[in-house]
Amino acid sequence: MKLYSYFRSSASYRVRIALNLKGIAHDIVPVHLFKHGGEQLSQLYRTLNSDGLLPTLVADDGSGSQHVLTQSLAMIEYLDEIHPMPALLPSTPLDRAFVRSVALSIACDMHPLNNLRVLRYLVHELNVDDNAKNAWYRHWCESGLAALELTLARDKRPGKFCYGDSPTLADCCLVTQIFNAQRLKCDLSAMPTLMRIHENCQQLDAFVKAAPQNQPDAEV
Amino acid sequence: MKLYSYFRSSASYRVRIALNLKGIAHDIVPVHLFKHGGEQLSQLYRTLNSDGLLPTLVADDGSGSQHVLTQSLAMIEYLDEIHPMPALLPSTPLDRAFVRSVALSIACDMHPLNNLRVLRYLVHELNVDDNAKNAWYRHWCESGLAALELTLARDKRPGKFCYGDSPTLADCCLVTQIFNAQRLKCDLSAMPTLMRIHENCQQLDAFVKAAPQNQPDAEV
Repeated sequence: MKLYSYFRSSASYRVRIALNLKGIAHDIVPVHLFKHGGEQLSQLYRTLNSDGLLPTLVADDGSGSQHVLTQSLAMIEYLDEIHPMPALLPSTPLDRAFVRSVALSIACDMHPLNNLRVLRYLVHELNVDDNAKNAWYRHWCESGLAALELTLARDKRPGKFCYGDSPTLADCCLVTQIFNAQRLKCDLSAMPTLMRIHENCQQLDAFVKAAPQNQPDAEV
Repeated sequence: MKLYSYFRSSASYRVRIALNLKGIAHDIVPVHLFKHGGEQLSQLYRTLNSDGLLPTLVADDGSGSQHVLTQSLAMIEYLDEIHPMPALLPSTPLDRAFVRSVALSIACDMHPLNNLRVLRYLVHELNVDDNAKNAWYRHWCESGLAALELTLARDKRPGKFCYGDSPTLADCCLVTQIFNAQRLKCDLSAMPTLMRIHENCQQLDAFVKAAPQNQPDAEV
């Protein structure tokens, strides 16, 4: 498989973790979000991914045909279906819904508001200054994570990870959002459940190898 | 089942369509986004849904226990797992990934940017005027739908609907986003594939009954 990825793209980071957890061999194809006016916006990349967003996964179906997948959560569900073990979703419908809801609360309600293209719109179209831009970032990140802390703290299902004692789709999303939150100096002091799970994830090779600083295109 | 819903909430609208497609009996519990300072932000509602977002689904597992589900896409996957027919996802992993990616492109990359709380932040925190707010709305809606038009137009899998000739999770999301786009007078003239699918959906009772104007809490 080939994953078009940028080291700091958190949607790419989620899929890198899942590929590592599954032990699926893959090549990383770096796409630079800033160089050449944004390589993700190039006509070439858009033939694969018309949204011009990262990541894109190119999967070989075994017969030599290549298939292009977009949207990080759809990729991780796909990886879980074709390589069922270790499972990234629980076995019962209710528990699967719980894990998906944690992932979606990050993928729909936090991350999209802090995406590069959105921050650029704030600056270039709405003339928002740096302070207000960073306040926007922290607002959505902190309020979203605070609600997620409450959700996980009052549910019986979290263990070492968001669901039980093995990592799932939810952890793939949580770790990448905490990375963003720490980078923008969000206040995470009132989120002991999330930070405990984050720490547990950092003990696993699959998460460490997927981290931005350990990518072939990492910049200091 | 009970669905906490607001007639114009597009995430609620997605789940209403899915419940109708499955023929699952349910009660709608209206939550008013504007009255009483936003009923979705009340302490009572937040005991069910700590994000303070709509919808929330309360499912009875048959033994009398009630289970609270959040996030519209997690709910629809759940409904598809407990009531497999008619299927809202295809049978092969690649095709499931395709349908999920269409749904996620709307649920992650379009809708969250046009959510009420985001528009309020633009107005109240960033002093954005009405014109600029509507331009923001149309920008994300039109650019997102234009990319989706391209994706669907160049793929062989769409038929009467986003995938083949039966409605799926993707159509539940598409119709609700087109509703938003039309309400904000987005330019949809260059999106023949999306509009054709949208028209086909409108021929089905499940979609008509789920529409905002046909809800118990609809306002003229």
